[in-house]
Amino acid sequence: LIKASIITIGDELLIGQVIDTNSAFIAQQLNANGFAVNRRVAVADEAAAIEQALTEEAKQSKIIIITGGLGPTADDITKPLLCKYFGGKLIVNQTALENVQYIFEHIIKRPLTERNIKQAEVPDVCTILQNKNGTAPGMVFFKDGVCFVSMPGVPAEMKNMMEHDVISLLKKEFKPQPIMHRTLLLAGIGESTVADLLVHFEAALPTYIKLAYLPNYGFLRLRLTGSHTNEQELLAKIESAFADLQFLVKENLVATNDEPLEKIIFELLDSKKLTLSTAESCTGGFIAHLITAQAGASSFFEGGVVCYSNQVKKDILQVQETALQQNGAVSEAVVIQMAEGALQQFKTDYSLSVSGIMGPGGGTAEKPVGLVWICAANQQKHLTLKLNLRFNRETNIKLSAMHALNLLRTLMAQ
Amino acid sequence: LIKASIITIGDELLIGQVIDTNSAFIAQQLNANGFAVNRRVAVADEAAAIEQALTEEAKQSKIIIITGGLGPTADDITKPLLCKYFGGKLIVNQTALENVQYIFEHIIKRPLTERNIKQAEVPDVCTILQNKNGTAPGMVFFKDGVCFVSMPGVPAEMKNMMEHDVISLLKKEFKPQPIMHRTLLLAGIGESTVADLLVHFEAALPTYIKLAYLPNYGFLRLRLTGSHTNEQELLAKIESAFADLQFLVKENLVATNDEPLEKIIFELLDSKKLTLSTAESCTGGFIAHLITAQAGASSFFEGGVVCYSNQVKKDILQVQETALQQNGAVSEAVVIQMAEGALQQFKTDYSLSVSGIMGPGGGTAEKPVGLVWICAANQQKHLTLKLNLRFNRETNIKLSAMHALNLLRTLMAQ
Repeated sequence: LIKASIITIGDELLIGQVIDTNSAFIAQQLNANGFAVNRRVAVADEAAAIEQALTEEAKQSKIIIITGGLGPTADDITKPLLCKYFGGKLIVNQTALENVQYIFEHIIKRPLTERNIKQAEVPDVCTILQNKNGTAPGMVFFKDGVCFVSMPGVPAEMKNMMEHDVISLLKKEFKPQPIMHRTLLLAGIGESTVADLLVHFEAALPTYIKLAYLPNYGFLRLRLTGSHTNEQELLAKIESAFADLQFLVKENLVATNDEPLEKIIFELLDSKKLTLSTAESCTGGFIAHLITAQAGASSFFEGGVVCYSNQVKKDILQVQETALQQNGAVSEAVVIQMAEGALQQFKTDYSLSVSGIMGPGGGTAEKPVGLVWICAANQQKHLTLKLNLRFNRETNIKLSAMHALNLLRTLMAQ
Repeated sequence: LIKASIITIGDELLIGQVIDTNSAFIAQQLNANGFAVNRRVAVADEAAAIEQALTEEAKQSKIIIITGGLGPTADDITKPLLCKYFGGKLIVNQTALENVQYIFEHIIKRPLTERNIKQAEVPDVCTILQNKNGTAPGMVFFKDGVCFVSMPGVPAEMKNMMEHDVISLLKKEFKPQPIMHRTLLLAGIGESTVADLLVHFEAALPTYIKLAYLPNYGFLRLRLTGSHTNEQELLAKIESAFADLQFLVKENLVATNDEPLEKIIFELLDSKKLTLSTAESCTGGFIAHLITAQAGASSFFEGGVVCYSNQVKKDILQVQETALQQNGAVSEAVVIQMAEGALQQFKTDYSLSVSGIMGPGGGTAEKPVGLVWICAANQQKHLTLKLNLRFNRETNIKLSAMHALNLLRTLMAQ
């Protein structure tokens, strides 16, 4: 496999003010297209640190993808360093300047400043990549057989460039050998148990196919990755291994692709023209957010209630006062009434309800932090699930949402 | 400043399956306590790659924080490599073993396997850090004056260890010089405009105080960071610079601390014993999620409606059919009715409503993708805001939520 390094530039990454989502996106794109990411390095907005990273990574990778360090503020010193490193001088690129002018005239609607014009300056030894979502162009350099691509750090700008220009450029330049991935999603089984189950399976895999364990919030993804010059042989072997793998873990199998659970729910509902509503207490809208983060969710998602107080549970979802008093808000009886209330209020085919104690406060001896009740319902029946989570608030919310979506999937499969 | 490097280990980081949130957390902790993060490196689960990273980073940093590579599956090869690198052999640590046994007996409630017991093995040349949230202990090594800390990659496990053990250990060992941060949050002004405004301010800063620009979803954070052996002088200078900075950007000032907007809203409402409800169309529950992700939100947040369909807007929020027909769901008239409906339905002091077109589909010539209407209301008055966003769906949702929270803050300040 052709090796790539990712260099992210920016003090904000080193002080931890920003979570680096760019690297994961770039790595996904490279991997899906037959390149292997070797290392990822984050460095400060300092010429010496950037230069060191370029030099070191070029020793071990044929492709160096750089993001960040191209913004308009004074602390950006990447472009002069690139001039020094590749031997060139800064010139205004006419195409990039026209793009900056267009954005200021039609979108930002403010006059151009000196600082904005500087965004169109690039070293005269690069090829530029047009930025369809911002003012800083991308830049491509070659040195000693290594390809360097520099992109802005704004995710939307970088993503568009990466998908539309960089991948095709790299494929043309390096002609990578075929790579294939197959992914399974499992629930209700731990990493070490699966590993014991798969000892012989792993040992029997051809050397060019690898198995990775990717645990995530109580679920486990298993991913086969193969790369081989002979595409036919690779396809046959990876499909055969994938079939074996599905058989071995069939008891805990949730999905046979790499899609998030909310996408699986989307497809199940959308393909059958069924509708969904939510009634969330402890997850506080997070399930509705996961669902509506997907384009086209309005075709099946009618809406939801975040019923943080008992009053809202009673007023909108018709939860009975007696159910609340006898069982408490975090109980099987109440989540069933919440789910049934949502079915009625929103007139949907399915509904999903959650009530729990996310912590750190609010727990009692009888109902400790981490206790969660979930109900998935349709007009005919319902399923309930009780969780005893033991993480922090953020993780408890995410885990509850994932288990709720999986319970809905289980009900839909019945 | 004492320099630190962060090394994250794991194939999942290099294939982009997982977004690295650990590095940001570790960097924040180190920075807040007087250590400067020099570089962050992510490497594969391969002995050679890990060894190379240890060797290289130890040349430039006194502190090396390592996460990942300690899970129970077969692809983990970190501990043998640590034995080789530091010169030691794997032995079962009794304290770590007791922790593993406790977790299996009381929490997981399954018998221990061989693989689980191996989690308690550590090189005999390290000091262990107890893992309160999982089975893999942390490990501390010293070599040639450099301190190496290895922690599991599971965020909850790592965070607990970092906050409770690692920081105090590093402070005791390295006695870092005082570091101070002051952060401002601005809205409605671009990075380049602020930079022009602050040219003289930046030039006049003492060399030991730096200004960073941290743009995020239409808002801009300005952060002053200073470090000096004389704590009194540092405090005086950074406070004085911070006062100047606040004066220079006062037109666009949102907050004078490093808290997220939802935290600012929390404090405003909670301190005045006021309540809030939400009525979200296009943001789909994301605002409710931001609010309820905070512990204690139930003291002021009654609940919300995700009114994705017009029917829900009418049924729960009493939006008038005529308002929908005459203006469409994405209109000033409808968001006002949504906010007023939420005030009534949830009986709260304040409400916040959003309706918009998040894309990529659903736009028209008259109402393009990115058009968003927001309303913040109380019983006496309301404020509305119209946005024309031009990002992808994910970013449009986040931006709408941030602007909505800021509109509520503005209303509360009146």
